[in-house]
Amino acid sequence: MTKASIGIFDSGFGGLTVMNAVKNLLPYENIIYFGDTANLPYGNKSAEAISGYCLKNTEFLLSLGIKLLIIACHTACASTFEQLEKISPIPVIGVISPSIALIKEHAKTGKIALLGTRRTIHSQVYQNLIASCIPHADVTSIACPLFVPIVEEGYADHPIAESLVREYLKPLQNKQIEALLLACTHYPLLQKFIQKEMPSSTILIDPSIECARQAQKILLLRNLLNRTLEEPTYTFYVSDDPEKFRLFGKNFFPHPMKQVISTQFSLLEKA
Amino acid sequence: MTKASIGIFDSGFGGLTVMNAVKNLLPYENIIYFGDTANLPYGNKSAEAISGYCLKNTEFLLSLGIKLLIIACHTACASTFEQLEKISPIPVIGVISPSIALIKEHAKTGKIALLGTRRTIHSQVYQNLIASCIPHADVTSIACPLFVPIVEEGYADHPIAESLVREYLKPLQNKQIEALLLACTHYPLLQKFIQKEMPSSTILIDPSIECARQAQKILLLRNLLNRTLEEPTYTFYVSDDPEKFRLFGKNFFPHPMKQVISTQFSLLEKA
Repeated sequence: MTKASIGIFDSGFGGLTVMNAVKNLLPYENIIYFGDTANLPYGNKSAEAISGYCLKNTEFLLSLGIKLLIIACHTACASTFEQLEKISPIPVIGVISPSIALIKEHAKTGKIALLGTRRTIHSQVYQNLIASCIPHADVTSIACPLFVPIVEEGYADHPIAESLVREYLKPLQNKQIEALLLACTHYPLLQKFIQKEMPSSTILIDPSIECARQAQKILLLRNLLNRTLEEPTYTFYVSDDPEKFRLFGKNFFPHPMKQVISTQFSLLEKA
Repeated sequence: MTKASIGIFDSGFGGLTVMNAVKNLLPYENIIYFGDTANLPYGNKSAEAISGYCLKNTEFLLSLGIKLLIIACHTACASTFEQLEKISPIPVIGVISPSIALIKEHAKTGKIALLGTRRTIHSQVYQNLIASCIPHADVTSIACPLFVPIVEEGYADHPIAESLVREYLKPLQNKQIEALLLACTHYPLLQKFIQKEMPSSTILIDPSIECARQAQKILLLRNLLNRTLEEPTYTFYVSDDPEKFRLFGKNFFPHPMKQVISTQFSLLEKA
């Protein structure tokens, strides 16, 4: 069982940043990643649609005998974390709750900024969780729906991304934000421009790192760490074109992807 | 039969610009629109994925007894037009071929620019069709994958859209382009900025208008025009959230949408 893989899913590429953080912290763990590329992006879909996709993704990864499930997508976590945790016989972690302790540590006066997809922001999941842990919190939430396509199309370092960041972050001017949460897996790739718009005292929080720490903690506590110290295997499944995944995935996961397999299960059922 | 509706489908909202052109030219025709919002956008999916979605959309509209099918999506036309024409018992028109005659008329020296999604450009469908009609054509093709999200997120009139247009259109500088084809239903909403980057002699071609003319011609030829002169009905079906469709659809179809019905068939089959 301890040699069993950690399963990670996301709507597409963004969750690869979480996988990268998990790989760095747990270098002997086998990992299976599933990117639901036939249905990306989740951020502009309804909660019902996202829930349907996530159930399917979870069933698929469970069928491969994983020992821990990571929902590496803020939109998916905001919509369906509790539902998936209920049906899963193995531990499930998301990208949302692991960051809350770190926010609490850094936001003494409670001035917090939250950047996410429209679905994540509207779900109020982060806002409610922050309010329950930091009663004096003053959260400014901003939906940034263009950040995902701008990163996925390879413009993360381009002046267009800089203008876009400036535009979206206008409501944060003069707000003395202490902690800014990058509540979408793609947003850390825009960190440089985001930091430039904020005072140097503002801490940017990348939830993928906190999520990896949580994974480490659970595997330790449950005695599930892989102790073979062999070279781990990384297997990637996608619901659409594997070649495009390999090509675009590089921006998020800077390591070779040996096995990228297309399931196309959603397509087969629909055709 | 003549009172039967024209059926139009698209991956989401963009096809509403085609519906608007059809409505203007054929004001007594009933129209049923299907937006596959659970799977949008098509432009960054594989040909296999798009083909599966389009077959489903076509079957759905045919089941409603339409008399003419319009594929109001360049990506879908580029991938599956011939396949859908083969299976359909009623006439099918797309957004691609109707524009070719107009391009021929305006591009005397053959200097043509083609803007589209990555899938449309890579399919080479437009380029091949232009080459077969205009042997001396010199086509500069540019994939503009960020135009769709920028329009859908309501930034079509924003300086960010202007910078993005300038960036994508750089390869057209000093090329003496005569005709520029807006080969995606969203792009006419950026027409103002696109025209600004081009010499005043460049003609911008919006395929939705040519597509509506083709629809008119077929209904006339086949004696299928609705002659009742009653107030027509417009029905909208979407595979995801109908409220979001109503809200975002306004940018593309500036008329009231009385009936927006969610099919969610893709979700039901997947859950």
